[in-house]
Amino acid sequence: MKRTLVELISAKRDGLKLGTDEIKRLIASLLDGTLADYQMAAFLMAVFFRGLDDEETVALTQAMLESGQVLDLSDVRGVKVDKHSTGGVGDKVSICLAPLVAACGVPVPMVSGRGLGHTGGTLDKLEAIPGFRTDLDVSDFSRIVRDVGTCMIGQTKEIAPADKRIYALRDVTATVESVPLIVASILSKKLAEGIDALVLDVKVGRGAFMKTEAEARVLAEALVRVGTRAGKKVSALLTNMNTPLGEAVGNANETREALEILHGRGPADLRECTLLLGAEMLVLGGKAAGAVEARAELLAAIADGSAVAVMEKMVAAQHGDARVVRDPSLLKMAPVEVTIEAPREGFVTAVDSLEIGLSAVAMGAGRTRTDQAVDPAVGISVLAKPGARVSKGTELARVIAHSKEAAAPIVERVRAAFALGDEAPPAQPLLYSRII
Amino acid sequence: MKRTLVELISAKRDGLKLGTDEIKRLIASLLDGTLADYQMAAFLMAVFFRGLDDEETVALTQAMLESGQVLDLSDVRGVKVDKHSTGGVGDKVSICLAPLVAACGVPVPMVSGRGLGHTGGTLDKLEAIPGFRTDLDVSDFSRIVRDVGTCMIGQTKEIAPADKRIYALRDVTATVESVPLIVASILSKKLAEGIDALVLDVKVGRGAFMKTEAEARVLAEALVRVGTRAGKKVSALLTNMNTPLGEAVGNANETREALEILHGRGPADLRECTLLLGAEMLVLGGKAAGAVEARAELLAAIADGSAVAVMEKMVAAQHGDARVVRDPSLLKMAPVEVTIEAPREGFVTAVDSLEIGLSAVAMGAGRTRTDQAVDPAVGISVLAKPGARVSKGTELARVIAHSKEAAAPIVERVRAAFALGDEAPPAQPLLYSRII
Repeated sequence: MKRTLVELISAKRDGLKLGTDEIKRLIASLLDGTLADYQMAAFLMAVFFRGLDDEETVALTQAMLESGQVLDLSDVRGVKVDKHSTGGVGDKVSICLAPLVAACGVPVPMVSGRGLGHTGGTLDKLEAIPGFRTDLDVSDFSRIVRDVGTCMIGQTKEIAPADKRIYALRDVTATVESVPLIVASILSKKLAEGIDALVLDVKVGRGAFMKTEAEARVLAEALVRVGTRAGKKVSALLTNMNTPLGEAVGNANETREALEILHGRGPADLRECTLLLGAEMLVLGGKAAGAVEARAELLAAIADGSAVAVMEKMVAAQHGDARVVRDPSLLKMAPVEVTIEAPREGFVTAVDSLEIGLSAVAMGAGRTRTDQAVDPAVGISVLAKPGARVSKGTELARVIAHSKEAAAPIVERVRAAFALGDEAPPAQPLLYSRII
Repeated sequence: MKRTLVELISAKRDGLKLGTDEIKRLIASLLDGTLADYQMAAFLMAVFFRGLDDEETVALTQAMLESGQVLDLSDVRGVKVDKHSTGGVGDKVSICLAPLVAACGVPVPMVSGRGLGHTGGTLDKLEAIPGFRTDLDVSDFSRIVRDVGTCMIGQTKEIAPADKRIYALRDVTATVESVPLIVASILSKKLAEGIDALVLDVKVGRGAFMKTEAEARVLAEALVRVGTRAGKKVSALLTNMNTPLGEAVGNANETREALEILHGRGPADLRECTLLLGAEMLVLGGKAAGAVEARAELLAAIADGSAVAVMEKMVAAQHGDARVVRDPSLLKMAPVEVTIEAPREGFVTAVDSLEIGLSAVAMGAGRTRTDQAVDPAVGISVLAKPGARVSKGTELARVIAHSKEAAAPIVERVRAAFALGDEAPPAQPLLYSRII
């Protein structure tokens, strides 16, 4: 006998397994109004406690995916590969990674998000480029992926509307921190892009959603298992997010730094993270046999200017001012820069990425509610990273603001995010592990 | 720092204790719209998994109680005592108990409920008395309690509105079966009556909410502990609900049987259950030193007609036709009676109270949704109880319906609720235990 919707909630509550059809019915009922938000909220809390096995998670992913439009990129040749990061501070990797990988011949259709809380969002950063539009429709999106090799847009209303509904509920019902729900949310959106393969950058540490390597590993393994079961090639890297990635935090600030990477410049950690993820993508995309070969191809695409050329075309195709790609300094920043200096000689032992991220939100570079706008021109540059030897007066960071008054409280907060000591801290790896 | 509402949900989700003020804030926020239904639903599911300790349950009870009007019966002299049953089939005890206890000098202010699912409701049964009104306002209620000794009304909009909101949510979110939520729901309504003491009849078995004595004991103990902690005198009896209580099931049918008890007639089990609960109430009400003395007083109030006299006054005060009290046969029943006979010689080994209850609902005596009306005139009479020795053709039960056609499917269902065997079943106690 067909279980009622309330019986499905109580079955999950009691730790019973739901069938694929039952999970699809729950999602369909949410969308047609038969299942109320409060019933879904109770279901989500039951899932928080009881979990979903892989089969259920695949069913939930598929149901959310099929609640909307699934892009058809069959006219784009090649293995289409995307990257998803679980979010961090200073994580502008997508902006340089997508054109770089596309320049190596792997199409990268990328649907990105906006920042919320202490983590920034790729769309906000890209929109710091004058004229750049992230609200293209799906026909423009697939055309640009086909012609240019990559395109970066926001989640349209048509993509996984069930995920939007459910995510909004999770956010206000304390049901965000559930691995199967996170997995289904990420994968439903990514699978809707029409990709063949996906590389996941699961961030670990202070400024990440997952604070410990163990938690991050559980999530990464679930993403790889469920994504694979859903028919995609998937791998994941666990990377360090105790310290902001690169130097720049903020929107124009981060885009500028990402563009520097395409020119063969920029901070070493950002460059390394980009190369690690890019190598995964080239291997999954069938353009390299292994990491060494892939890395060489990526470096060549930087050296010969082809990555910059792809980025120029993409920015132009998305109505942006492509001149900024050649000259990132054209990106407009706020006029006041306040420098934070080391108060003593010693070593930087920690730069708290969460505090740096929250400071950026506090100055308007990020948002605490989804309906807030961000200020593209403000930001923070972290100039000394853990392990750096500093003298009294060495520049640790810079706060870029519209006025000294606006900068003042942020300066104090950023200053407090730095820890200095007499000895060099143990080196932290950028890459913790790779999960396939 | 004050925790946000979402933080309160996540705290409970993580098994942390909430403060009294925090629980009050949750309830106040639900009522003023700051906390959405879906957030409360998530909280309720978190409570399902994590529970509430007694202090939290008292806080929830008080918050729901104080969400509405708390009746002031300070002008009614004496220790005011009520009884609450967790619900069963054929449980019409309140109707005879309240006037009987009131006749012994203990005021009984009783706010009752309606039937839902297989369990009947006191209000539906009382309304089978022509003219009887259960929707009196609180000033009439307290006046009648003062003048007559008892009054039986429905939960007004003013009583514990938070409980109404939360109960409606629990019903559709699979969060009914949570002991602290059940305790807070029951006690918030009962404490709003302005009582000093409360006797709980926690039903156990097939036709009850609690199927096992162990479950019922957990609930009864929590009710007694929390009620006591909230400042009331509370005791509980665990009583048998494997078989319908008394013979009559249905509205007019049950009211008629309850009135018979006041005349010293009626089924032995119903009479015994009434005397057990009544004795508890007299002791809590300070009118008897112990059960033996209390029982004698109750029997005297039946024998001398004073219980009947109180019932007459109460029915009249509540605009009902008081003649039915002297002559219960005046209560109108449907015209067709179909008898179910024993198909063989032997012993009745079981009469499934859940099936009898559901049969009564199916014929219109009960409801499956709160917006349905009930038919006062139809019902089922269970004439042979477990242990009864029957011959082929002995009357087991009677279905009272408006037509033979309407009766036919019910007759089959009621017949199937009886089990017959060659040997007498082990005797089942009416009273399992008493919890103080």
